[in-house]
Amino acid sequence: MAPLIETIPIDDPADPRIAPYAAMRERDLVGRAGRFVVEGEVTLRVLLSGRARFAAESILLAEERVAGLADAVAALPEAPPVYSASRAVMSAITGFPIHRGVLAIGLRGSEPAPDALVPPSPGRAILVGLVGLTNHDNVGGLFRNAAGLGADAVLLDGATCDPLYRKAIRVSAGTALTLPSARLPDADALLALAERHDLVPLALTPAGRETVSALPPLRRALLLLGAEGPGLPEPVIARCRALRIPMSAGVDSLNVATAGAIALHHLAGHHLATRDNPWQLSQP
Amino acid sequence: MAPLIETIPIDDPADPRIAPYAAMRERDLVGRAGRFVVEGEVTLRVLLSGRARFAAESILLAEERVAGLADAVAALPEAPPVYSASRAVMSAITGFPIHRGVLAIGLRGSEPAPDALVPPSPGRAILVGLVGLTNHDNVGGLFRNAAGLGADAVLLDGATCDPLYRKAIRVSAGTALTLPSARLPDADALLALAERHDLVPLALTPAGRETVSALPPLRRALLLLGAEGPGLPEPVIARCRALRIPMSAGVDSLNVATAGAIALHHLAGHHLATRDNPWQLSQP
Repeated sequence: MAPLIETIPIDDPADPRIAPYAAMRERDLVGRAGRFVVEGEVTLRVLLSGRARFAAESILLAEERVAGLADAVAALPEAPPVYSASRAVMSAITGFPIHRGVLAIGLRGSEPAPDALVPPSPGRAILVGLVGLTNHDNVGGLFRNAAGLGADAVLLDGATCDPLYRKAIRVSAGTALTLPSARLPDADALLALAERHDLVPLALTPAGRETVSALPPLRRALLLLGAEGPGLPEPVIARCRALRIPMSAGVDSLNVATAGAIALHHLAGHHLATRDNPWQLSQP
Repeated sequence: MAPLIETIPIDDPADPRIAPYAAMRERDLVGRAGRFVVEGEVTLRVLLSGRARFAAESILLAEERVAGLADAVAALPEAPPVYSASRAVMSAITGFPIHRGVLAIGLRGSEPAPDALVPPSPGRAILVGLVGLTNHDNVGGLFRNAAGLGADAVLLDGATCDPLYRKAIRVSAGTALTLPSARLPDADALLALAERHDLVPLALTPAGRETVSALPPLRRALLLLGAEGPGLPEPVIARCRALRIPMSAGVDSLNVATAGAIALHHLAGHHLATRDNPWQLSQP
């Protein structure tokens, strides 16, 4: 039987207690100081699990979704407030229909220092660096692939979009909430970090001199990925070991999250198969 | 300078000449006898290129898009009718705003026999078989990855959705219009085809006994992929060489198009690098 949990009914869309959920799309665009929105059951369960890097500030559920999620809330040592509302009130709060009927506000907390995310030399370390990725689907997809294929962390340059945007979290299957991540100003800072930590800088680019599959096993690497279209800047590629994926004639390129997955499978697959993987071992 | 092309102005949304464009979303759901819709410049250019397997029946452009696409139309030996309309008329025809302002109707023609798409033994042949894939994004993504990574053709079971659905074509970056494809009734028919043509049947599944990267080079294979969630049916897996992609603990799975790309990169990458690839050679 599902456990009973205490919920706070909300009847007034202007209730100040649910103010962080108001005008959701408008705030998606301008960002939220210190907060982010989680939408849907799969990602809410990740946020409430022990694996998430972030705490939930509150939860807002459509009335008929409460029973189905009670187990995840009841399992928390200290549950955040759970608000419940009718579909009509929920839509009035957010400004558009929330089909899933499941929302939460997460707290960003303080961002870790990028250097703290690099497993110490000479141990195994595979990191991903995103340069100028402005598409939330691609950033979400890259988190999913990096988490699934055993990367230790994702580093973002200043131009890459927010992985804690609602849709990016959803596309990441919740891994944007679990995989360590930090932001650096630009590609130069990413390359300097690679040098400080003895990581081989790799650039994935159609013009790469070596193929991904011919790359020998590397214990420590930073894989840099640029946006589809522009790709990585030439001066960045010049400072890296440049890798390409062999492609059919007449086909331009793969999606960047897919290309990243192919490279990570090659880089991290061996470590995963041999279970020499700190990120994996740190997960329940 | 852009060439001049002749267009047929449309002022009346009920004009019978543009009837195939009417009530677009409703017809997306029920299907169109013998026709499909192409949306956006990238995919229209693929449809009009020599690489497409299909002919265009007609083109419908927002007035301001005509000049920018005139080169692709003027290059055709026999251009189909090009209708032009204001944005308002175009939206009235289709029933919703067409932001891209670029549409065309393609003709399905007669579907090739699946057996005709298999390069003859003992030559190299890598085919992809989709079993029960009902998500248009995933099917479009798989076409893009199969085309880019050198597969010869994609075979679909009866439950897999239509790769010529508007959104699937767009996600495929137009490769749904170029990569050979045919439908078979079910997974049994896919396995029988593999046997007839000396293709090693491979099943990608989290429960696979071998890892993808440990698979020795295969000259002839049919890679079967199932939907995320249910995956391939157990009796199908039992008749295949079952492959897995090593994953981090705590992460369920990759997106099916991404998993397929990793397997195809391993299967086809060697052939692409050595240019022993009929599909590639047949492309301009």
